[in-house]
Amino acid sequence: MYKVDLNCDLGESFGRYRLGEMKQILKYVTSANIACGFHAGDPSVMKETVKLALDHHVKIGAHPGLPDLNGFGRREMNITPNEAYDMVIYQIGALQGFLSVHNATMQHVKPHGALYNMAARDPKLAKAIAQAVYDVSPSIILFGLSGSELTKAGEKIGLQTAHEVFADRTYQADGRLTSRSQQDALITDKEKSVLQVVKMVKEGKVISQQQTEVPLKADTVCLHGDGEQALSFAQYIRGTLEKNRVTVSAFQA
Amino acid sequence: MYKVDLNCDLGESFGRYRLGEMKQILKYVTSANIACGFHAGDPSVMKETVKLALDHHVKIGAHPGLPDLNGFGRREMNITPNEAYDMVIYQIGALQGFLSVHNATMQHVKPHGALYNMAARDPKLAKAIAQAVYDVSPSIILFGLSGSELTKAGEKIGLQTAHEVFADRTYQADGRLTSRSQQDALITDKEKSVLQVVKMVKEGKVISQQQTEVPLKADTVCLHGDGEQALSFAQYIRGTLEKNRVTVSAFQA
Amino acid sequence: MYKVDLNCDLGESFGRYRLGEMKQILKYVTSANIACGFHAGDPSVMKETVKLALDHHVKIGAHPGLPDLNGFGRREMNITPNEAYDMVIYQIGALQGFLSVHNATMQHVKPHGALYNMAARDPKLAKAIAQAVYDVSPSIILFGLSGSELTKAGEKIGLQTAHEVFADRTYQADGRLTSRSQQDALITDKEKSVLQVVKMVKEGKVISQQQTEVPLKADTVCLHGDGEQALSFAQYIRGTLEKNRVTVSAFQA
Amino acid sequence: MYKVDLNCDLGESFGRYRLGEMKQILKYVTSANIACGFHAGDPSVMKETVKLALDHHVKIGAHPGLPDLNGFGRREMNITPNEAYDMVIYQIGALQGFLSVHNATMQHVKPHGALYNMAARDPKLAKAIAQAVYDVSPSIILFGLSGSELTKAGEKIGLQTAHEVFADRTYQADGRLTSRSQQDALITDKEKSVLQVVKMVKEGKVISQQQTEVPLKADTVCLHGDGEQALSFAQYIRGTLEKNRVTVSAFQA
Repeated sequence: MYKVDLNCDLGESFGRYRLGEMKQILKYVTSANIACGFHAGDPSVMKETVKLALDHHVKIGAHPGLPDLNGFGRREMNITPNEAYDMVIYQIGALQGFLSVHNATMQHVKPHGALYNMAARDPKLAKAIAQAVYDVSPSIILFGLSGSELTKAGEKIGLQTAHEVFADRTYQADGRLTSRSQQDALITDKEKSVLQVVKMVKEGKVISQQQTEVPLKADTVCLHGDGEQALSFAQYIRGTLEKNRVTVSAFQA
Repeated sequence: MYKVDLNCDLGESFGRYRLGEMKQILKYVTSANIACGFHAGDPSVMKETVKLALDHHVKIGAHPGLPDLNGFGRREMNITPNEAYDMVIYQIGALQGFLSVHNATMQHVKPHGALYNMAARDPKLAKAIAQAVYDVSPSIILFGLSGSELTKAGEKIGLQTAHEVFADRTYQADGRLTSRSQQDALITDKEKSVLQVVKMVKEGKVISQQQTEVPLKADTVCLHGDGEQALSFAQYIRGTLEKNRVTVSAFQA
Repeated sequence: MYKVDLNCDLGESFGRYRLGEMKQILKYVTSANIACGFHAGDPSVMKETVKLALDHHVKIGAHPGLPDLNGFGRREMNITPNEAYDMVIYQIGALQGFLSVHNATMQHVKPHGALYNMAARDPKLAKAIAQAVYDVSPSIILFGLSGSELTKAGEKIGLQTAHEVFADRTYQADGRLTSRSQQDALITDKEKSVLQVVKMVKEGKVISQQQTEVPLKADTVCLHGDGEQALSFAQYIRGTLEKNRVTVSAFQA
Repeated sequence: MYKVDLNCDLGESFGRYRLGEMKQILKYVTSANIACGFHAGDPSVMKETVKLALDHHVKIGAHPGLPDLNGFGRREMNITPNEAYDMVIYQIGALQGFLSVHNATMQHVKPHGALYNMAARDPKLAKAIAQAVYDVSPSIILFGLSGSELTKAGEKIGLQTAHEVFADRTYQADGRLTSRSQQDALITDKEKSVLQVVKMVKEGKVISQQQTEVPLKADTVCLHGDGEQALSFAQYIRGTLEKNRVTVSAFQA
């Protein structure tokens, strides 16, 4: 009855620099967001990551970021909506190049890091990114923070959108994530974390830090791909979801 | 009866840096090779250039280069065939992103600068590049130096290839271009230069510096896009070709 | 009696991309801010620019910027004070490399573009930049927007600071520049522009857009280096200042 | 009586990407070659690495590389001697920025990867690099492959030079390293490897793969800094050298 997607950032290596253990995490997730060379990734890493995701029957999305390799795309930059549009098109296209080699299609686009955060709260940037995705192909799904400006912009333009939730982050009464600058931003308890996800998926609700029930859409859950704990958590959340009769599958499964 | 394509490198600006006068040269050429962000160009420049080429009904090709913005892709780099394959796929894809916005298709791929030269003489690199083009789409035409390893590799793999000739360069008895390190490498006389092209197109021959007739295929002529002289030469060569009953048109016209 | 410095951004070319007419503007300014490879400039351009400035007996300063060549360092980035410290040290050092070839010393440091603007209003960033300059050498002069957080931070740490004013920008009653988003931000009248500078230098005052007299320190005036108008304006302002018995000279003259 | 330096490449991390275990290897080496941001390293990594090396009383050198982060500076690029000169000055200067914070001086310069290899065999490139080092400061020591064009160029220009040897590489009868493309290029036996170094240091000779004795200067030995084996080998070679009454110390110790 219930269904959810598990997504993970992938292909974040660059040249001699290796990051993440792709083969492990690909066993548990259903969608992979592949870095496109701006904040991480390079052409060779992208080729390898696409191949690996296809081998594991994991759906592929572009993970466009800000042009800031040194900052890993995590430093907000004051770009214009036009610049956002252009850099998203470029990065989607670059990844599609590697997909076309396998006659594979792109399932989704999920902006990375600072671009994701800025698009969540800035309607103009959100619109530009949604437009870029739409202009490349209206059949690509847009991933954005649940209930954010980005998912709104996607829906308005006519894209299928996936509302993303977090297992390891707490929420505020207004539905926003607790800022990382707050002490109670993270959920470190594994079980608590999974229960939050199960509730979000099955009831469409989350308990805020103010102990109120907040309605929220949960189409896809963001998992991390590096670190041993990340892998064991991915295994655990997938198992627990399935035990709770939540089907874990991608959108275009 | 006779037919030839005129191509020109385009979209070589980057950020605040402007290069070339695109609107002018687009009146005379039939194919545009658009830089893809490695040796020149950026996402915004690419968007603008694609739009302009389409407005002028000029066919569009990717112009992938080495990852060397500071050297404008003109410094040879000891990359592996695999790396060449990956960076060509990436750049073709990035440009296709902008083409897909207009439901336009890519006519051709022409490697840039040092990558072009290396591919002309290195069979392994040539094969990798031809394979990259083929893997993205077998209907893309590969542009390469006439009679080079690159056109050979393209033909072998089953791609339509375009043999490129130069109006302003002299040839050796073995059919190769005279090295730029030689004093007689360039043809500075406008008329001589056009006569060479007319002969190459209509007779499939060029007179070498050794005064021998060398057979050679001339499908497309490389024109330059910057400088006032370049523009007046483009106008002159197009006019002269047409007067000599050579149709100037793109391949997919 | 009265004295002022005229400074100009220089060395903003990159690889094949050329920007500005350095030889012309060097005749009129007394201090040159040389780009250090992050927002513009490259090692070869820096060597050439240092040589040219020394030939013209113009004092040399580093012009460190954000690591954003594509945005020309004009897009604000959310960097930490530590990152600002590190990138300023790096860029000062790189330029000093070229100065040491000539046994020349660095007169000043002036942050570029978005880094300049952010440092003008953010005390922590300002402090980090001032500290970087001080840590490399306490004898380097820090250039910053007149009356800004950057000059304050420089003074607090014990650096000699130069308060910079603009000839072509209007001021508000609180002493800040009129935002470029306002219609009346720019002074386009040449004469009005120079009169403003003369008043700032001789009286330490500027007439705000609200018609109030605002006190303000004017140690150095920012001139532009590209465009024909920029050159004729540089010539004009220098002449007018000297006619008004204002000595135009660098700090370490 | 006998003396040798042990050097190691350091500071090769970049942004979020971490490489090498600096704290461990710094216990065994006497000279550190710090990456300067072209092939690896960034301003923050450089600051941290300089601090760490100083804390361990290890002498510091610049490790300038080709502008190729994606290829880790290992792909040869066809740069001109002038370009080599400029990029070496830039990188030395950038590192000196961080040294000046601590009033520390640069002991040496050792080119990295492909730049090192090209400079070993190309006299013009070697001369340009030696000139760059000399022009920044004649008291900096130039590290180069023992008996190569680079050490020759350094000696000719009047620099103190350090002839570098390798513990884990075999040599040919003409004194050159066996090419990595050959099966017998590497010495994998730990003891054999150290014996070769002891012989090179104490006798100034190495046994070639052709079983001849080849004269060779051994001022400094290149050690690797990443991997557990590298650390245990560093400890082992240092211990063995000292047992063989070879003092392990830097040049400016």
